[in-house]
Amino acid sequence: MTTPLNRQIVLARRPTGAPRQDDFMLIESPPPRPGDGQILCRTIYLSLDPYMRGRMSEGRSYAKAVDIGQVMVGGTVSEVMESRHPSFKPGDVVLGYDGWQGWAVSTGAGVRTLDPTQAPIGMALGVLGMPGLTAYVGLLDIGRPRAGETVVVSAASGAVGSVVGQIAKLKGCRAVGIAGSEEKCRFVVDTLGFDACVNHRSGDLVGALRLACPSGIDVYFENVGGAVLDAVLRLVNPGARIPLCGLVSQYNATEPVRGPDLRPVLVNRVTIRGFIVSDHSDRQADFLTEMTRWVREGRVRYREDVVEGLEQAPRALIGLLDGRNFGKVIVRVGPEPARR
Amino acid sequence: MTTPLNRQIVLARRPTGAPRQDDFMLIESPPPRPGDGQILCRTIYLSLDPYMRGRMSEGRSYAKAVDIGQVMVGGTVSEVMESRHPSFKPGDVVLGYDGWQGWAVSTGAGVRTLDPTQAPIGMALGVLGMPGLTAYVGLLDIGRPRAGETVVVSAASGAVGSVVGQIAKLKGCRAVGIAGSEEKCRFVVDTLGFDACVNHRSGDLVGALRLACPSGIDVYFENVGGAVLDAVLRLVNPGARIPLCGLVSQYNATEPVRGPDLRPVLVNRVTIRGFIVSDHSDRQADFLTEMTRWVREGRVRYREDVVEGLEQAPRALIGLLDGRNFGKVIVRVGPEPARR
Repeated sequence: MTTPLNRQIVLARRPTGAPRQDDFMLIESPPPRPGDGQILCRTIYLSLDPYMRGRMSEGRSYAKAVDIGQVMVGGTVSEVMESRHPSFKPGDVVLGYDGWQGWAVSTGAGVRTLDPTQAPIGMALGVLGMPGLTAYVGLLDIGRPRAGETVVVSAASGAVGSVVGQIAKLKGCRAVGIAGSEEKCRFVVDTLGFDACVNHRSGDLVGALRLACPSGIDVYFENVGGAVLDAVLRLVNPGARIPLCGLVSQYNATEPVRGPDLRPVLVNRVTIRGFIVSDHSDRQADFLTEMTRWVREGRVRYREDVVEGLEQAPRALIGLLDGRNFGKVIVRVGPEPARR
Repeated sequence: MTTPLNRQIVLARRPTGAPRQDDFMLIESPPPRPGDGQILCRTIYLSLDPYMRGRMSEGRSYAKAVDIGQVMVGGTVSEVMESRHPSFKPGDVVLGYDGWQGWAVSTGAGVRTLDPTQAPIGMALGVLGMPGLTAYVGLLDIGRPRAGETVVVSAASGAVGSVVGQIAKLKGCRAVGIAGSEEKCRFVVDTLGFDACVNHRSGDLVGALRLACPSGIDVYFENVGGAVLDAVLRLVNPGARIPLCGLVSQYNATEPVRGPDLRPVLVNRVTIRGFIVSDHSDRQADFLTEMTRWVREGRVRYREDVVEGLEQAPRALIGLLDGRNFGKVIVRVGPEPARR
């Protein structure tokens, strides 16, 4: 079998502040060959996620930085093209972590076969994948919302936030989103079914949040940090919980960013808890069962922002970090296999 | 029975920044008379605690502010001088909340009779009282230290911090204090038995803490906020817990104070949890049993900083907020009763 050249996007240099196009480089090389116990995969979809900004920088984080010249990391949905591994066969569609490239060889470790008849395969990178599990674990296990409480989530039209608010509704809570445009806010309320959504670019954030949360805030699912967190802390109820899964607003910062005044955390007995989804793989089975059912029943809706072509990935990640996406960003790297 | 005039210290005006002597006023008035179901108490000791600064200001807190002209609030150990209440008799020594005055009438609600043969009565305001319970609940229930972990506590020679570190040692942890002078640090290590103590006024706080905590920090009991918290967050281990019971460094601030960069909280999956001891009265019985035993066995030691005379209370509170005390501050308002 002949394969075309492997297109790869590598880290060309470490960004200062917001990443730029020339921090990335597209290279081409012959595709790898699978050895014994390995599989050769062709990438169909590549997931883009805010955490990738962290991997572009050196410094203490929960995962190693990408080296200069190394292929950018990322979750992928791929087709198995050759298999020298007993658990996979050609034609299998798999969820893996092959990064920003058209072809990859892997040992199959951490690779899961998808059933394309169960759900659109791209969902494995979003609502049925890492972002969905992040929402599920962060809200249910860390936020622990009770029926009747008010749950607020930032980046509410995004891959994680959209799921957080919809689970909150399923649990009998008032769900209030925060998003960056009127169009996103309309989507969050009209399509996703949140009770309200506040545009954080519209001026008086505290005033707008207060109107949207007449009984205060019991759970705030934190994605962004900065001014949004400051506003939320002015409205938290005693005993509020703040699962912290991201700080997108400061990922491009070149200086350490001061956080919120902790006095409201003390006075209101608030719990702020950072978490990383990879620590919670014990919840994967429960999550997948419940979320697949919710998606099939139409109780959790989901929007993809599909970018065409691997070469568009840098621009799309830059936009994602700036809030310019609308829904879960995936890059279509190659065609879906014909359904048999 | 004739009683002398009742000396009272009232709030004269709300401080801006650090309180000053003339924010308080000493007044004298005839002592109150107990009605049916009431007791008349003579104050022996008044507790001074950092939370009192909060009660001097208006604004959202967990308890109502003291009004202008009202007697300053505070915990007291007193002698019952007259009783028209079935549970108390003259000569009883009681723990109450009579505030900054020589005499007070109360209904007995929340008042507990002390046994002067069991422990020095002043301890009911410190190691066997609210500060001790704060240390006990905050460390054990919120910090949840495991044997072998490193526990760091700020204000380590103070009423709460001194107890936190000693309980940590009893639970098999490495206990590291942070205090504001070499003399305090020596006391914390030599007398209280902490493994190390860092003087936060001595320059390179991060470097000194790193030396004192070679395995990183698992629990940080937060009393002070500000630069100490920043330094700790550079050294926290994954899964660290930060019980937050005070922010003394910013109680006198006139502007909202920015908090720490939350990125280490995210990366290291840290939990920051504000708590107020009055929410945890269900732990009072366990606490009192265990702590009384520890104190009797000499396993928890304790230092009082006794201030002579009610008129000295304003100066002493001002000093406490500035870290000039050395141990638990109590004001001797009147003599202890002769032991019968």
